[in-house]
Amino acid sequence: MNIHELVAELRETNDSKIVLLVADGLGGLPLQPGGKTELETARTPNLDACAREGTCGLSIPVLPGITPGSGPGHLGLFGYDPLEYRIGRGILEALGINFSVGAKDVAVRGNFITLENGKIKDRRAGRPTTERCVAMVEKMRHVKIPGIEVFVEPVKEHRFVAVFRGDGLGDKVNDTDPQAVGVPTNVAEGADEASKRTASVANEFVAQVGRILKDDAPTNGCTLRGFARYPKIGTMKEVYGLRCAAIAVYPMYKGLARLVGMDILDAGDTLESQVARLKQAWNDYDFFFLHYKYTDSTGEDGNFSKKVEMIENLDAAVSGMLELKPDVFIVTGDHSTPSKMKSHSWHPVPTLIRATMARTDGVTEFSESACLQGGLGQFQAKHLMLLAMAHANRFGKYGA
Amino acid sequence: MNIHELVAELRETNDSKIVLLVADGLGGLPLQPGGKTELETARTPNLDACAREGTCGLSIPVLPGITPGSGPGHLGLFGYDPLEYRIGRGILEALGINFSVGAKDVAVRGNFITLENGKIKDRRAGRPTTERCVAMVEKMRHVKIPGIEVFVEPVKEHRFVAVFRGDGLGDKVNDTDPQAVGVPTNVAEGADEASKRTASVANEFVAQVGRILKDDAPTNGCTLRGFARYPKIGTMKEVYGLRCAAIAVYPMYKGLARLVGMDILDAGDTLESQVARLKQAWNDYDFFFLHYKYTDSTGEDGNFSKKVEMIENLDAAVSGMLELKPDVFIVTGDHSTPSKMKSHSWHPVPTLIRATMARTDGVTEFSESACLQGGLGQFQAKHLMLLAMAHANRFGKYGA
Repeated sequence: MNIHELVAELRETNDSKIVLLVADGLGGLPLQPGGKTELETARTPNLDACAREGTCGLSIPVLPGITPGSGPGHLGLFGYDPLEYRIGRGILEALGINFSVGAKDVAVRGNFITLENGKIKDRRAGRPTTERCVAMVEKMRHVKIPGIEVFVEPVKEHRFVAVFRGDGLGDKVNDTDPQAVGVPTNVAEGADEASKRTASVANEFVAQVGRILKDDAPTNGCTLRGFARYPKIGTMKEVYGLRCAAIAVYPMYKGLARLVGMDILDAGDTLESQVARLKQAWNDYDFFFLHYKYTDSTGEDGNFSKKVEMIENLDAAVSGMLELKPDVFIVTGDHSTPSKMKSHSWHPVPTLIRATMARTDGVTEFSESACLQGGLGQFQAKHLMLLAMAHANRFGKYGA
Repeated sequence: MNIHELVAELRETNDSKIVLLVADGLGGLPLQPGGKTELETARTPNLDACAREGTCGLSIPVLPGITPGSGPGHLGLFGYDPLEYRIGRGILEALGINFSVGAKDVAVRGNFITLENGKIKDRRAGRPTTERCVAMVEKMRHVKIPGIEVFVEPVKEHRFVAVFRGDGLGDKVNDTDPQAVGVPTNVAEGADEASKRTASVANEFVAQVGRILKDDAPTNGCTLRGFARYPKIGTMKEVYGLRCAAIAVYPMYKGLARLVGMDILDAGDTLESQVARLKQAWNDYDFFFLHYKYTDSTGEDGNFSKKVEMIENLDAAVSGMLELKPDVFIVTGDHSTPSKMKSHSWHPVPTLIRATMARTDGVTEFSESACLQGGLGQFQAKHLMLLAMAHANRFGKYGA
């Protein structure tokens, strides 16, 4: 029996409220062996109180040693085995801009590039403004491919999304971005009949874009990557019976939440507006996913002290969330992003569950080293929702 | 997706060096409840320093409560699920003496025995010298079985290897060693058609050996156990992209390493010669498996203080390994061998990973009790190679 079958058998309904606060890339590393991590350095009185009143542990996003991207990282937290459910980048980008992807669609992430004599001079076209991105996308909408509906939407700076809609399109197509400059873009090729159809559509798209934008250097070409069809995935409502809302600022995380059927609430673009939205929506949902980006982005920048500051900002916002008296309050991350590494990492992620029936464990602060001694031990992220449901008293007994 | 498929997708190449030091049977038990284990008793300044600079934990060889033999114990450490990959003893013995086993072969481990009136008087023939073993094997090469090529090779003392080469030979054949004296040897029987063919070959072999050695008491008979065909198993190079070398003294461990495609380097027969060989081969490989036997053999002997001494000898050799500045230095065991039990055991095995990106965890000494508080937690041995690859920066991100 897989986990979702088990959940379907055991789940019950009540009026409990669950808040899942995801601090992206929360886990870190000390700069020197034996030193303190970002979270250990930060002053976090509210999170420490939650750790004292709840139970702590460390979440393994996928498997020991495996560093996830945002997609698998979040799917795991939502209770979808990230090795079983695989989501292509094209789909994530499309969901993130609120594009309604359908069953006949192949979505792909596009980058504007600068071409010179047929070779890539800049893989991000000098990072154009988003305004220019919008203007270029407007022109690209003139691409016409017989038998295919083509959608192009701007994302941000050099990034856009293309969606090809038609019968029998596969998504086993290579990226056209060679990940290098001084060389031409790759030709798209399909690994099977359906994907060959998509590849020829993609090549035609790139050729027409080249003609349309030929006088628009530095944004005079494009690459495509992450060809992906919409995956078959049960919603959180179907799996857990929870009415779920996402309160996220960045497109990617809205997209991930939409993928599992959450309602996406307008969250503004600050923690304050997110908490305000949480209060406003409190009576309408059972489960709230709050996403906080800046613990990841500062880690990616390698800015230890800024990540510490972002953690402290998050801590300050926690009291507003607790005023609502959630039955289950969970704080975790989708992966670690140590500023020492300037990248996502495999290191387990500090996690706390504050709930009336949490077994307290003597942990008095929220940190990597303290969580190591916590009652949740080290656990796979895909099991977190089981713990959320249990602490919300939403599971019946398994077996007689 | 299984682990090896995941690894194939994520693995990257760089010039990092990984050293996996396996202290066979490393884990132990205190002689009295609340006392110290062998590792806790030993003075191990070098290993303690590694524990401080790295991250520690406890490796579960197969599953909680399962005691492995050397085969499954090592396969797990090499990242092959020991419940999925099963290697017969005959194959291990054959690999250990550098016999090139092929697809049509069934290999089996043989013991010289002493027979008296058709019954076993000594299951190891009074532990003959290896010279006598060689001489007896020479005689046994006169065995002729129609349609079958028979190979016999000496191992050591009372032990030899027989390989039967022919079409359609199975390996589901019982051991002929009854594990008792005062009784005749067992008749070999096959569980299916192919294995029945092998069983009749084996019985004919034993009968001819009985006639050939009838005047050679105490080595006047033999038993056969661990009938095994060569398993299908991807090499470490295929799975991880690592050029792997084994620096082991004992045949069994060379055989295990050869099984997963490692190059077997001549290692002499001391720790010093092993470390010297490591230095010599440093530039030619990415991954080095060093095997140290004496933590196991002293445990098997029930010699607590000798095991302590062997651990201290190992500790002294660690500094020579660290002089090479491996990017990832791992110390573990394939299982525990508590001298209190005089046997392999299921107890989790102390493990440390010393690497720049290890998350230090406050562990200040290498011991069972200290590792229990370590950042790796308790993990399945089959995941160790994922951690090795991660700490060597040899994995890309999983998913976008």
